[in-house]
Amino acid sequence: MRFDNPVPVTTIAQLIGAELIGNIDGYVTGINELHKVEFGDLAFVDHPKYYSTCINSAATFIIINTKTCFPEGKALLVVDDPFEAYQKIVSFYRPFTPSLKMISESASIGAGSVIMPGAYIGNHVSIGSNCIVHPNVTILDHCIIGDHVIIQAGSVIGSDAFYYNKKTNREIHYKKMASCGRVLIENAVEIGANCTIDRGVSHDTIIGAGTKMDNLVHIGHDTVIGKNCLFAGQVGIAGATTIEDNVILWGQVGVSKTLTIGKGAVVYAQSGVKDSIEGGKVYFGSPVEEAREKMKEFVWIKRIPQLWEKVMGSKDKG
Amino acid sequence: MRFDNPVPVTTIAQLIGAELIGNIDGYVTGINELHKVEFGDLAFVDHPKYYSTCINSAATFIIINTKTCFPEGKALLVVDDPFEAYQKIVSFYRPFTPSLKMISESASIGAGSVIMPGAYIGNHVSIGSNCIVHPNVTILDHCIIGDHVIIQAGSVIGSDAFYYNKKTNREIHYKKMASCGRVLIENAVEIGANCTIDRGVSHDTIIGAGTKMDNLVHIGHDTVIGKNCLFAGQVGIAGATTIEDNVILWGQVGVSKTLTIGKGAVVYAQSGVKDSIEGGKVYFGSPVEEAREKMKEFVWIKRIPQLWEKVMGSKDKG
Amino acid sequence: MRFDNPVPVTTIAQLIGAELIGNIDGYVTGINELHKVEFGDLAFVDHPKYYSTCINSAATFIIINTKTCFPEGKALLVVDDPFEAYQKIVSFYRPFTPSLKMISESASIGAGSVIMPGAYIGNHVSIGSNCIVHPNVTILDHCIIGDHVIIQAGSVIGSDAFYYNKKTNREIHYKKMASCGRVLIENAVEIGANCTIDRGVSHDTIIGAGTKMDNLVHIGHDTVIGKNCLFAGQVGIAGATTIEDNVILWGQVGVSKTLTIGKGAVVYAQSGVKDSIEGGKVYFGSPVEEAREKMKEFVWIKRIPQLWEKVMGSKDKG
Repeated sequence: MRFDNPVPVTTIAQLIGAELIGNIDGYVTGINELHKVEFGDLAFVDHPKYYSTCINSAATFIIINTKTCFPEGKALLVVDDPFEAYQKIVSFYRPFTPSLKMISESASIGAGSVIMPGAYIGNHVSIGSNCIVHPNVTILDHCIIGDHVIIQAGSVIGSDAFYYNKKTNREIHYKKMASCGRVLIENAVEIGANCTIDRGVSHDTIIGAGTKMDNLVHIGHDTVIGKNCLFAGQVGIAGATTIEDNVILWGQVGVSKTLTIGKGAVVYAQSGVKDSIEGGKVYFGSPVEEAREKMKEFVWIKRIPQLWEKVMGSKDKG
Repeated sequence: MRFDNPVPVTTIAQLIGAELIGNIDGYVTGINELHKVEFGDLAFVDHPKYYSTCINSAATFIIINTKTCFPEGKALLVVDDPFEAYQKIVSFYRPFTPSLKMISESASIGAGSVIMPGAYIGNHVSIGSNCIVHPNVTILDHCIIGDHVIIQAGSVIGSDAFYYNKKTNREIHYKKMASCGRVLIENAVEIGANCTIDRGVSHDTIIGAGTKMDNLVHIGHDTVIGKNCLFAGQVGIAGATTIEDNVILWGQVGVSKTLTIGKGAVVYAQSGVKDSIEGGKVYFGSPVEEAREKMKEFVWIKRIPQLWEKVMGSKDKG
Repeated sequence: MRFDNPVPVTTIAQLIGAELIGNIDGYVTGINELHKVEFGDLAFVDHPKYYSTCINSAATFIIINTKTCFPEGKALLVVDDPFEAYQKIVSFYRPFTPSLKMISESASIGAGSVIMPGAYIGNHVSIGSNCIVHPNVTILDHCIIGDHVIIQAGSVIGSDAFYYNKKTNREIHYKKMASCGRVLIENAVEIGANCTIDRGVSHDTIIGAGTKMDNLVHIGHDTVIGKNCLFAGQVGIAGATTIEDNVILWGQVGVSKTLTIGKGAVVYAQSGVKDSIEGGKVYFGSPVEEAREKMKEFVWIKRIPQLWEKVMGSKDKG
């Protein structure tokens, strides 16, 4: 999330009751997750395992639950519970103030765009020109839609991330991490019916220009989709994943989180992508392999009885 | 389904034109499916195969298409077509009288709860305090929502069960069994966008406190979900299944009907659970096995060509 | 798509700026895809590979980008870009003129049918008698719904086909082919919550009488479903496929495009149907095989370690 205007780090420290150490004159430009932070950003870390990564990331300001050394020019904001501090900042700068009209007065809708009945357009949503938003679509606060975009009926743009902090005092439970990112949909994207595209937790979920999705597709938070991809029905993509340009995912493919699918890869129906895969190749299986390797496997499995007979001297299990 | 007040069994017998045998002075407290019946309940049975189970269940009153012996204190309601008798009772005591307002006047909504535009709240729905019901959500009649519940846009709570009576006179066809159960959503449950949670046929579908679901998740009728479970996107769970506490189902997992997943089980993405599985373990595959066993299988399959070469003396199929 | 009244072929030729050769006195009754065309129809072809198939199809009028011979009684409409000519005809005869009311004035709704709040009923939609259209359902223009049909909350009927023309000048991109077909839902069909049924590109998507679908089911464009089928939750069926009567697809089954599933076939959960399969049999797997064959395969795979030990003399990989 970018602040509308840079905020003095002292203001943030006061808001969250932090002890401020280091660059106390700095201005904070935004707040972001560790793997998306940029110079000027605030990040948070509460586990010793990640202290070093966070302190040495691009983040200029670090909310942390210890005092430790850090590079010059940065600042630490020391608090007992960095997660709660993060939540406080988000709820202060991006409060949940739902519009109670179907089309918010702060939404902007470009020339030639049609918003059909039953569609909800939240606060500060921007829709470009010549778009069609079909009935019963929901576009939540702060999402940005380009030109010539079609969103078919019932789809939801900007639902909150499925992102929880696990707590284990007495029993396991989960605390929602507030989503302050957005969904950015570039020009000429077409989204099928009853799809769901989650907003980023703190960065943006991005759908690249010209990408087309069939119905009931799910795109997780902070995921970045390239240009001119094709996703068939019921594809599901988890959070913080990168899909490069021209990727084709056939029906019911599942893609795990924080991985990359290279440019031009094709993944056959019902496959499961659990690790990054190279572009320019064709994949199949759950987990995926290159399709022609996976196909050979099917042939080999069918030969087991023949092997068995040769080795064991009988077609039945000895 | 519980009746608002206990109903004399003679009233029920008259409604469905049944011959009443046995405890004719009793009061019926509710109507339920065989595996959910309690003392005071009415159940129905129309197939000789299930006569004995039904008569000896907890049900006090049995709608049946034969005269047979039964335990003292119970009553039989003898009719030609128990299924039709059941439908008649449901449509009399739980008639379909849809509210034609977006928020029914008989719905109750707790303090601090926000119902966003386009959300439909049916008759006798109860929503606790500090909930958020996002745009274009549908919550159908009689569903009960706890406190601090979040339901994201486009989700449907209380759709009818997918439950049909197969008829084969002349040709196969299916007759819908009326759903008179409810959906009960406990405190601090969070439901993603475009999910669907079916009501129970005659019992309740229950989502335990603290459970979180991602988008496009489907929960079948009469299914009981424990506390603090996590279900990732596009998970589907069939009817009358039990998921104990702290179960984690990753994306696109499918779970069959009337089974149990034990406490703390973890099921990897795209797996299929067709029988009950123990808690505390990690599973993968369709059908599932323990994940580490399934992983070994992948290794063994890759060794078939080596076996073939050793046995057949050539890498190619002889 | 059928025209409301037959149109002189000269009118069409003028609309698209085509050179007209052959039967210039003919009347065009409709426009259709190659595999759905009938006598009197207009079809289009732009690739030499399909010239002959198209010219010799049932189509009477062919939009084409070459001059070639053709059977007597037919006509060619020669243009540079047949795809664009097709788009122009569709947008002229089936223009997108969205109703801005939740229930269009041109929709007709039969006696005893209930349209619940938040449901959108488009232009020229026809709904029979005794139907229930639940809240937040979307039924788009020109769809035809029979009697005693139930459509549960959030479902979308008549979304556009996922059908694109691939263009590769400079970079790959996709151009939407306008959908001018309809969805026809026959009597006593019941559709679950948050399902999506795409309209045909130029023909109709048809759901046969008595068929029942659970939630989150996706049906592609131009697909024809038989009578009294059962589709469990999250089934996905691609475009232009034929499912015959009494077919049962269990949860999360995926079915590819342009194939046929024979009468009475049963496909177990999570299976993938990539080619046509015969009726009357039970299937499992991705891709499917007959279920009992597939089950044997699971047993054979479990025997590999035993084979390995016998051949290699050790349980571990040599």
